[in-house]
Amino acid sequence: MSSVIDGKAVAASVLEECRAEVQELKSKGITPGLAVVLVGDDPASHVYVGSKVRTCGDLGLYSRKIELPATTTQEELLAVVRELNADPAIHGILVQSPPPKHIDEEAVVRALDPRKDVDGFHPENVAKLALEDPTGFVPCTPAGCMRLLAASGVKTAGAEAVVIGRSMIVGKPMALLLMAKGSDATVTIAHSRSKDLPAICRRADIIVAAVGRPEMVKADWVKDGAVVIDVGINRIDDPSTKKGYRLVGDVAYDEVAPKCSAITPVPGGVGPMTIALLMKNTLQAARQLG
Amino acid sequence: MSSVIDGKAVAASVLEECRAEVQELKSKGITPGLAVVLVGDDPASHVYVGSKVRTCGDLGLYSRKIELPATTTQEELLAVVRELNADPAIHGILVQSPPPKHIDEEAVVRALDPRKDVDGFHPENVAKLALEDPTGFVPCTPAGCMRLLAASGVKTAGAEAVVIGRSMIVGKPMALLLMAKGSDATVTIAHSRSKDLPAICRRADIIVAAVGRPEMVKADWVKDGAVVIDVGINRIDDPSTKKGYRLVGDVAYDEVAPKCSAITPVPGGVGPMTIALLMKNTLQAARQLG
Repeated sequence: MSSVIDGKAVAASVLEECRAEVQELKSKGITPGLAVVLVGDDPASHVYVGSKVRTCGDLGLYSRKIELPATTTQEELLAVVRELNADPAIHGILVQSPPPKHIDEEAVVRALDPRKDVDGFHPENVAKLALEDPTGFVPCTPAGCMRLLAASGVKTAGAEAVVIGRSMIVGKPMALLLMAKGSDATVTIAHSRSKDLPAICRRADIIVAAVGRPEMVKADWVKDGAVVIDVGINRIDDPSTKKGYRLVGDVAYDEVAPKCSAITPVPGGVGPMTIALLMKNTLQAARQLG
Repeated sequence: MSSVIDGKAVAASVLEECRAEVQELKSKGITPGLAVVLVGDDPASHVYVGSKVRTCGDLGLYSRKIELPATTTQEELLAVVRELNADPAIHGILVQSPPPKHIDEEAVVRALDPRKDVDGFHPENVAKLALEDPTGFVPCTPAGCMRLLAASGVKTAGAEAVVIGRSMIVGKPMALLLMAKGSDATVTIAHSRSKDLPAICRRADIIVAAVGRPEMVKADWVKDGAVVIDVGINRIDDPSTKKGYRLVGDVAYDEVAPKCSAITPVPGGVGPMTIALLMKNTLQAARQLG
């Protein structure tokens, strides 16, 4: 009797919160502004950027899309970042990942004004997350997972949480959020080198899967009544579909769902939250920059 | 048949490494220098600072002890930090904790040049630890614990490690070090809000206790053959001793030791490592600053 956690619905309610906050900021003379920088022609990146800009428009945020050719040099990109850092109409800056291979993405992140780093990847925001300083920006995907847990009424305090994956984009920040004061989960971070991953997962009240391996988490990995948050978005071949593929998560949904008290589907679970938390972060930046 | 991990011996070998490194740096015209700032009259702090300065002298490092009265203002202390930041003879700066209550310790840490922050508490070094950037400084106590594990031949890859305590001084950095690529442990961070701490600890191949509760970890919390690292140093009353107290760890040593494959005693385990790793960090700073 699992309940499906409806990421679209939770995201919509976060966006409604944002809409109200935008009005409040505007009434104080602040129009929150987000700049999205896109280097090159990656089609998926174009889709993501388009939907971010559209969401800004829908909520009443100012947005600026900056499209640069794939031949843009590191120095040219850094010059754009510096300009946006200095632009008072821009409160949040996002450089869409992945950039072309000749770009040093880490150096670009470091060049961002940390007060405008709404992706939360600048070292200053990484540190603030570890130090539980709420003025920092939390990366959108793990922040979205925390909102999904809260919206589903999941109690994290004292719960055993297992995070599969130790990336700085999802795994580590997710672990830090779950163990922080107020969340108070007992957190295990498991990864590709962990022994007996099924046994580790079986002890979890909450599983967050963020490894990028299609349908890795099977039914016998999951304790009855566990909550499962599936961050993975993987393409697998499926000749029966028009596109020839379909999207699946890191969790074998059909067999796992019946055992869970709650589970996020893919798509429609974590995915829609990311953009909603990006908006949240941009409003936080606008409030903090004033 | 547990083996006692001799922290004094391992620390001595780290200090011998340092002695050789100091000679090498001096042959390049660099005399590594450490400044230790002590505000107020805390007797324990005076002992710690004294032993740090003595170790510097013994290894051939330049050291400077700056003793300030308990009435020193925040601004006066920050001025001292800024002077040391600018001083080319000083590669490492340590402000002894705890300062008097009117001092904002976090602001003092942020004022340090992160390249001279040999305690590893500046946000830039916190971030580098999370990002697994080896140019950062790792806090001395967890770095010392990792050295003890390595010196004892403990394999961390794939092992189940349980860290009790989620502080930024020990618990969180310890967890990050154990889960980092190359260490590859499966890490659980448990804390005061964890449910059934004994059961959580029983699954551990490696236990790191860093909670500051005298003899909390009992024999039935520990799996046969586990490795136990005891970071706690607690005073408990003991009228049978001359001082009226004795030092114990967070682990009930006498009952736990027989179950372990290896265990650190208190005192003489983790304690001696901290100062050795402070020297290591100072040499790293001297190398990196050139």
